[in-house]
Amino acid sequence: MSQPLRLGIAGLGTVGAGVVQILRKQAALLETRTGRPIVISAISARSRTKDRGVNLTSYAWEDDPIALAQRDDVDVFVELMGGEDGPAKAATEAALELGKDVVTANKAMLAMHGQALAVTAEARNCVIKYEAAVAGGIPVVKALGEGLAGNEVTRVMGVMNGSCNYILTRMEDAGLPYADVFAEADGLGYLEADPQLDVGGIDAAHKLAILSSLAFGTQVNFAGIELEGIERVSIEDITAAADMGYKIKLLGVAQMTGRGLEQRMQPCLVPETSPLGQLQGGTNMILLEGDAVGQIVLRGAGAGAGPTASAVLSDICDIARGYRGSVFGQPANTLTAATPALSQRPAAYYLRMSLKDKPGALAKVAAVLGEAGVSIDRMRQYGHIDDCAPVLIVTHKTTRADIDHALAAFDNTSVVAGDPVALRIEEV
Amino acid sequence: MSQPLRLGIAGLGTVGAGVVQILRKQAALLETRTGRPIVISAISARSRTKDRGVNLTSYAWEDDPIALAQRDDVDVFVELMGGEDGPAKAATEAALELGKDVVTANKAMLAMHGQALAVTAEARNCVIKYEAAVAGGIPVVKALGEGLAGNEVTRVMGVMNGSCNYILTRMEDAGLPYADVFAEADGLGYLEADPQLDVGGIDAAHKLAILSSLAFGTQVNFAGIELEGIERVSIEDITAAADMGYKIKLLGVAQMTGRGLEQRMQPCLVPETSPLGQLQGGTNMILLEGDAVGQIVLRGAGAGAGPTASAVLSDICDIARGYRGSVFGQPANTLTAATPALSQRPAAYYLRMSLKDKPGALAKVAAVLGEAGVSIDRMRQYGHIDDCAPVLIVTHKTTRADIDHALAAFDNTSVVAGDPVALRIEEV
Repeated sequence: MSQPLRLGIAGLGTVGAGVVQILRKQAALLETRTGRPIVISAISARSRTKDRGVNLTSYAWEDDPIALAQRDDVDVFVELMGGEDGPAKAATEAALELGKDVVTANKAMLAMHGQALAVTAEARNCVIKYEAAVAGGIPVVKALGEGLAGNEVTRVMGVMNGSCNYILTRMEDAGLPYADVFAEADGLGYLEADPQLDVGGIDAAHKLAILSSLAFGTQVNFAGIELEGIERVSIEDITAAADMGYKIKLLGVAQMTGRGLEQRMQPCLVPETSPLGQLQGGTNMILLEGDAVGQIVLRGAGAGAGPTASAVLSDICDIARGYRGSVFGQPANTLTAATPALSQRPAAYYLRMSLKDKPGALAKVAAVLGEAGVSIDRMRQYGHIDDCAPVLIVTHKTTRADIDHALAAFDNTSVVAGDPVALRIEEV
Repeated sequence: MSQPLRLGIAGLGTVGAGVVQILRKQAALLETRTGRPIVISAISARSRTKDRGVNLTSYAWEDDPIALAQRDDVDVFVELMGGEDGPAKAATEAALELGKDVVTANKAMLAMHGQALAVTAEARNCVIKYEAAVAGGIPVVKALGEGLAGNEVTRVMGVMNGSCNYILTRMEDAGLPYADVFAEADGLGYLEADPQLDVGGIDAAHKLAILSSLAFGTQVNFAGIELEGIERVSIEDITAAADMGYKIKLLGVAQMTGRGLEQRMQPCLVPETSPLGQLQGGTNMILLEGDAVGQIVLRGAGAGAGPTASAVLSDICDIARGYRGSVFGQPANTLTAATPALSQRPAAYYLRMSLKDKPGALAKVAAVLGEAGVSIDRMRQYGHIDDCAPVLIVTHKTTRADIDHALAAFDNTSVVAGDPVALRIEEV
């Protein structure tokens, strides 16, 4: 094991530069820990001349990441370019074809092509490692795939996009509407080049799809995720939820049910006193539940050069130590194609609506809910503003279908102004 | 890799029985995940006839755990007997001598003999794995030794004994003195057979010693820990600390300093709004800090059959998958013998004292602190009870030595009744 492990690193953005920095700074420590030198053979990025604050002169340069992946002096292809298709995928495939291991931070690529890539890798006895693809520096892939290997995993849940959590907590703290805080976050550089990846919940859903596969032995299925972003979360809902003892989070939940695999990424209410409820700003938090271990909570920075590079290094050290193993915790050809199950699992719901100032208005709302089979746990009506009264309702456990029936029926009552809001309350 | 991995399990208490149960129930899943069958060859425990709620008839029985460890049909010796010396250590050594791997939950044995056992193991290319020895089901050994392998670890900190945290939070919730809650916890079976292991902080310090070694590449050094249990934590301090916005926790802290390795296990104050401050009941929480990753928080059940068995299974699966590697994250012969450094690192302190009803009493206290170089951040004096007034002080950052000077000087003022209490306030 004293042969050096030779890396080819493609992509030198903040994460890539961070990885190079750690490999240079901690070379001796990493060799001591893993038992062999870890060296960079070659690098590749869009611009050869850009100053990245780290000395790159001793590494061979390739303009083409595919050529980098194919170099004879590269044992491990480190893919930090991003993008679900294009050069990242082509270069990853090129590396695997030649029997080289891959370390990647690319959640989009794995969420869309994880199964095919895993099959390719395992046919050639290669590994693909991707700790950095989920929740930045939090070693959740390792915790789930290895730490909980003795468990039947019952649920995976969490806040997996720091930008969304920043926006939601900032809205509450500053009392500002979504649009203002979105603009502020964008100006601060907190959002992806395509902000829809963040606020549309897509980035977080990519991560959830990967964790689901690891947790339940299923093929990655991004398309099976019930997905809703945070664009429609209003400051009114944040304030009203707080009034009822809840916080609104963009929450990912994956759970195997009798009808199939339920995967949801959507704004939910969680108790303000729960660990998830107390999560402020750009931090990530993942809850893992297993039949033996109970609930494990992991919390840390979900993004940033240092945390993400830390996760990439974890994978590189694993490979240097000879820790191999299946891409998704068990051989890719044993992963099942689970049927997506929509969230028919009953839950309590939060409803907010604006009631017109008519006699019997509240009674009509209550009657509609009763007819839809939705039972009320708590209700609050506030004073009228411009002839309308805000009403908040927390229901007992009910199905989404019953809630949808009630929402449709409100339209015909002529006492509800505008569209009522319904958000799931997640048990945590 | 399709050869079965054959286990010999010594110790069939709640954890041992839990491990057997999982191995039986999840045999197919474990084989799929690790690529090979995991089977029990033989077992050993004190009583052969005791009903443990699990069918043991298909396993060979050994009265002597050493004989079990030496059996030809045992690849991995699973040590779940406990005890720092005696049969656990003898059988572990016997297994290693014959080149067998060891999985153990025995924090006391590792804290006292970890270095010698690691040297023995690595000389024979064996592994010793011990996820269950620290914080039950929380995969903290894996997170620290593998997940943070690319980091220079800067601090490890946490609540590592659920029984102590139960007692402290129960004292606060019920407003009961230590002795009452201790008796209650003992009656509920929450404490070790020798409760001093829990409330004296010894069990938690064992865990801290193990984490320190993994974190800082140092030889396990239990004797170098500054150790104080929770026996002297009073309900008065818990109430007073809460009044100032803090919780009292039995907190373990390990940190490499310029003067050596600081390891402390002692009651400390932490902000009530911090994750550690909000930790209720028997749960464990570990904070890991690295130069790249920042702070990672791990939380979960620190004890119990299921969580501990989950951790044991994680180690067994690692071995089945061929994940080997050094016992303490780097070869035992590279671990340094760090000088223990007492906690001279400055911190804010909480002081509580009882002031006699004399003119100028508070001025004298303030003067003593000033002369000792201790600067006051916040002070509260409450109304007199029986001619004495409780005084709470939160200092600015100062050294333990200066605090001790001040405490000694209070004796000569004749205005302080009884012994003042001084507790460190930890930055989290």
